[in-house]
Amino acid sequence: MMIIMKSNATPQQVEMVIAAVREAGLNVHLSQGVEATVIGAIGETHSIPTERFESLDGVDTVQRITQPYKLASRQFHPENTVLPIDGFTVGGEEIAVIAGPCSVESRSQIIETALAVKEAGACALRGGVFKPRTSPYVFQGLGEEGLELLAEAREATGLPIVVEIMSQVQLDLMVKYVDVLQVGARNMQNFNLLRAIGESRTAVLLKRGLSATIEELLMSAEYILAGGNSRVMLCERGIRTFETATRNTTDINAIPVLKNLTHLPVILDPSHSTGHADYVAAIARAGIAAGADGLIVEVHPDPAKAVSDGKQSLRPEKFAAMVTQVGQIAQIMGRNLATASEYQKTGWA
Amino acid sequence: MMIIMKSNATPQQVEMVIAAVREAGLNVHLSQGVEATVIGAIGETHSIPTERFESLDGVDTVQRITQPYKLASRQFHPENTVLPIDGFTVGGEEIAVIAGPCSVESRSQIIETALAVKEAGACALRGGVFKPRTSPYVFQGLGEEGLELLAEAREATGLPIVVEIMSQVQLDLMVKYVDVLQVGARNMQNFNLLRAIGESRTAVLLKRGLSATIEELLMSAEYILAGGNSRVMLCERGIRTFETATRNTTDINAIPVLKNLTHLPVILDPSHSTGHADYVAAIARAGIAAGADGLIVEVHPDPAKAVSDGKQSLRPEKFAAMVTQVGQIAQIMGRNLATASEYQKTGWA
Amino acid sequence: MMIIMKSNATPQQVEMVIAAVREAGLNVHLSQGVEATVIGAIGETHSIPTERFESLDGVDTVQRITQPYKLASRQFHPENTVLPIDGFTVGGEEIAVIAGPCSVESRSQIIETALAVKEAGACALRGGVFKPRTSPYVFQGLGEEGLELLAEAREATGLPIVVEIMSQVQLDLMVKYVDVLQVGARNMQNFNLLRAIGESRTAVLLKRGLSATIEELLMSAEYILAGGNSRVMLCERGIRTFETATRNTTDINAIPVLKNLTHLPVILDPSHSTGHADYVAAIARAGIAAGADGLIVEVHPDPAKAVSDGKQSLRPEKFAAMVTQVGQIAQIMGRNLATASEYQKTGWA
Amino acid sequence: MMIIMKSNATPQQVEMVIAAVREAGLNVHLSQGVEATVIGAIGETHSIPTERFESLDGVDTVQRITQPYKLASRQFHPENTVLPIDGFTVGGEEIAVIAGPCSVESRSQIIETALAVKEAGACALRGGVFKPRTSPYVFQGLGEEGLELLAEAREATGLPIVVEIMSQVQLDLMVKYVDVLQVGARNMQNFNLLRAIGESRTAVLLKRGLSATIEELLMSAEYILAGGNSRVMLCERGIRTFETATRNTTDINAIPVLKNLTHLPVILDPSHSTGHADYVAAIARAGIAAGADGLIVEVHPDPAKAVSDGKQSLRPEKFAAMVTQVGQIAQIMGRNLATASEYQKTGWA
Repeated sequence: MMIIMKSNATPQQVEMVIAAVREAGLNVHLSQGVEATVIGAIGETHSIPTERFESLDGVDTVQRITQPYKLASRQFHPENTVLPIDGFTVGGEEIAVIAGPCSVESRSQIIETALAVKEAGACALRGGVFKPRTSPYVFQGLGEEGLELLAEAREATGLPIVVEIMSQVQLDLMVKYVDVLQVGARNMQNFNLLRAIGESRTAVLLKRGLSATIEELLMSAEYILAGGNSRVMLCERGIRTFETATRNTTDINAIPVLKNLTHLPVILDPSHSTGHADYVAAIARAGIAAGADGLIVEVHPDPAKAVSDGKQSLRPEKFAAMVTQVGQIAQIMGRNLATASEYQKTGWA
Repeated sequence: MMIIMKSNATPQQVEMVIAAVREAGLNVHLSQGVEATVIGAIGETHSIPTERFESLDGVDTVQRITQPYKLASRQFHPENTVLPIDGFTVGGEEIAVIAGPCSVESRSQIIETALAVKEAGACALRGGVFKPRTSPYVFQGLGEEGLELLAEAREATGLPIVVEIMSQVQLDLMVKYVDVLQVGARNMQNFNLLRAIGESRTAVLLKRGLSATIEELLMSAEYILAGGNSRVMLCERGIRTFETATRNTTDINAIPVLKNLTHLPVILDPSHSTGHADYVAAIARAGIAAGADGLIVEVHPDPAKAVSDGKQSLRPEKFAAMVTQVGQIAQIMGRNLATASEYQKTGWA
Repeated sequence: MMIIMKSNATPQQVEMVIAAVREAGLNVHLSQGVEATVIGAIGETHSIPTERFESLDGVDTVQRITQPYKLASRQFHPENTVLPIDGFTVGGEEIAVIAGPCSVESRSQIIETALAVKEAGACALRGGVFKPRTSPYVFQGLGEEGLELLAEAREATGLPIVVEIMSQVQLDLMVKYVDVLQVGARNMQNFNLLRAIGESRTAVLLKRGLSATIEELLMSAEYILAGGNSRVMLCERGIRTFETATRNTTDINAIPVLKNLTHLPVILDPSHSTGHADYVAAIARAGIAAGADGLIVEVHPDPAKAVSDGKQSLRPEKFAAMVTQVGQIAQIMGRNLATASEYQKTGWA
Repeated sequence: MMIIMKSNATPQQVEMVIAAVREAGLNVHLSQGVEATVIGAIGETHSIPTERFESLDGVDTVQRITQPYKLASRQFHPENTVLPIDGFTVGGEEIAVIAGPCSVESRSQIIETALAVKEAGACALRGGVFKPRTSPYVFQGLGEEGLELLAEAREATGLPIVVEIMSQVQLDLMVKYVDVLQVGARNMQNFNLLRAIGESRTAVLLKRGLSATIEELLMSAEYILAGGNSRVMLCERGIRTFETATRNTTDINAIPVLKNLTHLPVILDPSHSTGHADYVAAIARAGIAAGADGLIVEVHPDPAKAVSDGKQSLRPEKFAAMVTQVGQIAQIMGRNLATASEYQKTGWA
């Protein structure tokens, strides 16, 4: 940590800062320039907030020179983490394509979608049962009934299921049913939820918040990892910017940046990051070309009838075309699409 | 709601959309221009998401022409809501100044601060006991012990207490102690929490999310109001932009915009919206001049020793100077500072 | 154009707006809902600013339903524009890779770079001679001397040259030398410059401004097209957001969105859009996978010695590897890399 | 400047960086921590771009610890600059209120407006004659004819005139007529224009770009100051963010931040920063309460008929009310409104 003093800081103020650094268990390295004095605070700084020194008299700014996260850092874990999910892995050679509707709406809808995405090449099924909706007046999800329908769809297809959790209160229920817990953008800094999930052993797909920095995303992953749950995937799903032509702005840069900073797998959600079905395939291809380890895509058998996110949902045939293109890009990247577990036909369709 | 069709939409597609509008219980008003056909959907649209029509074939965009919130809207409630809090009101003539430390750290710290802010002119005491921290490795708050200390400080000063709640799980505990529940920026769209608070009858200070639009803030208020809890104050605390000279960007425009759109009181938090003690007084003055109904300000007896947010915390004497200036601005605005309940001396200090 | 009246607008105000619409030469379509009256203004609206109606009494908002640009619109020009540049085309099947240093620094530097990028597969050479620098105290470019060196490099390699123009005053000089005029991000709304370029017949690479919307980029293209210069390429080069891990945020969504809205070719600049050499290849691949028609990339024989943008400049060997990967992605997209004109060996190297 | 090496940087790489620092004429201060080596580069760093070191092998990041501007810095010029304009001063005790229409439209319009704003308390007249318009199809300003009308209005009222310049080509014409050259947001980094203005001796109102940082605004001022023109005022006019409820987001924080960093006067433009007449007075009051030295406000005798910016233009009577409120705030701030030069009646009105 570098503590940069104001140009008019007094020797007494410098002394006070040095004392504070030592009190924090850090070593001091003093650098007195013509224009500014800089105090290096050296040691185990990741557990010390910069604010500890920022408000001392005479301090101008405090800058970290090492990362504030450790378990998520590639520095301490140079190899990619390869997460086993039922039947496939994420973060290794395989590219995971997770697909399904925004919301579980009915038995026929989710079973039909599950069969269609499986046939098109998906390796896992997504579907929401607790929905974070901006308005209190609209459909909020089927709740536990939806989880049961998802379990049926899993049985019918062999696809593991990825479902969003909105509150620590839902954790016991969720872990009974789901293979991967999704933490949505609006809950990326719901630290109580993160801590609870950290104590479970269910795999997690952690979405980046609408205006969260990449570092904040990694700090939220750190909450889960610090609890002992090491099965964390990160998900770029678009950030909020001034541009209104698309629902969000896909931060495609985040993919190589995250692959550089962390060993955790990185997934792209081109449905939310564009908000428009017409753009999903282009951004899905871009994501894999940029180095993503997988995709999570909204698919609905009849988007015009979807209760939520219809505008950004692909019809199954469009999704199948997307998977084909993504598979070709994956090959160039020296990778291949993860295939779902063996199909356990149980009479559906 | 106006549904704008693509320029190449077919008559069949227009018919399908018209049918969908009628199915939603709305009336249709058709406008066929040279360049585009527009279908007006008229009726009780606030409970119908625009996405219901966005994914129909041939639809270009769907635009609301009325607000998606109702209980929060000034249109249906033209008079200002004046919220009674113990000993003062918010949203009427009085300007409420809420002040206190970021975190409750110790008995002496919170009592000392409470006495100081009371003397300087605050009408309520803030203090965090469950802290939403970016890092899992730093101080997370004193929890219930902190609530007890706050209750002592209230007893010592007569100041009602404002405390952040982070999870619905904390609600029973919190309502036993606090006068105003604060919902922090990171939880503005924690809908489970909002719904739980909506069912309580404790007053709420709802902070705007880092990248939440003004409309989204009002929709979150709507969640609480829809539950039957009408004692909601809104709080502008700075938004996230590209500018890094300050911690956040105070959206001062939000103050007159909110006062125009809603009848609920509007509070400004100049501590978080600037992140720097040197700028707090200027922005506090600006907020009151722009029409805010109150302020929430971080004050610490020794900012250099604060465990959190020291950089943006005012020393009591600086806070007192700020209150004096704010009081002068309030007068020009035809208002006056709320005064705290009678001081109930109990031997502290 | 839809003019949405306030809910409390009077019949007289509605009459006044109707009269104003007619006065603007537009037809009126009136829609009186329960909650709001909407006046459709129908006709040639692209030359009428929305502000013409926004300030009339009783008006709430005015929304365009057709695009404010015409010459740039795909609606009126459904086929892709394929721009011929010396020796290759942009916007058709060929993918154009333009490369070279940020600044022309010396004869040996530019000739060496030109030979290297040609060999690696570039079809045009970039190089700056008038540099828009944030600070007045740093290197501002070689000016005309730089243009002469670029002309030499072109002669040596056969590569056409792409050079940034900063002011209309430089136009006569520039068109004597350059094959493609580049308009930089900071000048995207320098309307005097755009108008001057519109009157020339030199091809243009128009970069998106740091915080320009996609629509504003198209409006700036419209300025050039309206002057009679139809050889315009658009360039996404990253936008400014809150994220600081990269210099800018590549708006990868802009690529399919632009391809949808306009017939003009779309180029990606992964050097500026990331600001970091380590991320350039990943984002270059992503851009082509998303449908871009070309790339413009900073390459320097010795980035550590570059006078500007060294951090984001690729060494020639890294650039060559990038071109190979991009070529593979191009093939999947049914395209191929543009090849430079025949090499006119003149003794360099 | 602090050069932070990567954690795996080799001793040779450190040596190379040290050599480069010395070559740049700076002294070296080496700090070798457990986690990272930091090389302090000490000396006259403001003319050395950070990129000079950023691309050296082994370098992680380079951070300035002193400001990259000098002439604009309060550090080297602690006293406020008080700029004399004809008849009043800016930056001292007086608060300057500049007002007038967005565009000069006609003789009667500008004379009428000038008389009205003078009577209401303005000390200078604004009016555009070269208009930066997003669309090439709309009114672009009256050009020189507009300047003549402004000169007439000045003669009629004694108010000095503030007019936007869009290109260095207009400079000779402009300085013949205007008292203050306005550089608009879109030209804040038109460095050719800044350099040309730096060589003139006409006062300048430099507006912040839509997505320019405060530091970039100061660097643009530095361009003008470095040319020898010291009469520069800075203007906050709103920045571009995700919020769409207002045209821009007033960065009210920028006012105390700029007053802290620079000795130059700071003006607020509440018309552009809100985009809505209903919010102008609130934000004008806020600006003065935050410490601004003046305001520039759009006023039009009949906003509904304005050719541009009608929505954000105040009617004269609303402007007069705003001036009264602003004057009261000024008094609390220990300041007073600048009054215009003596009225030189010449038969108008």
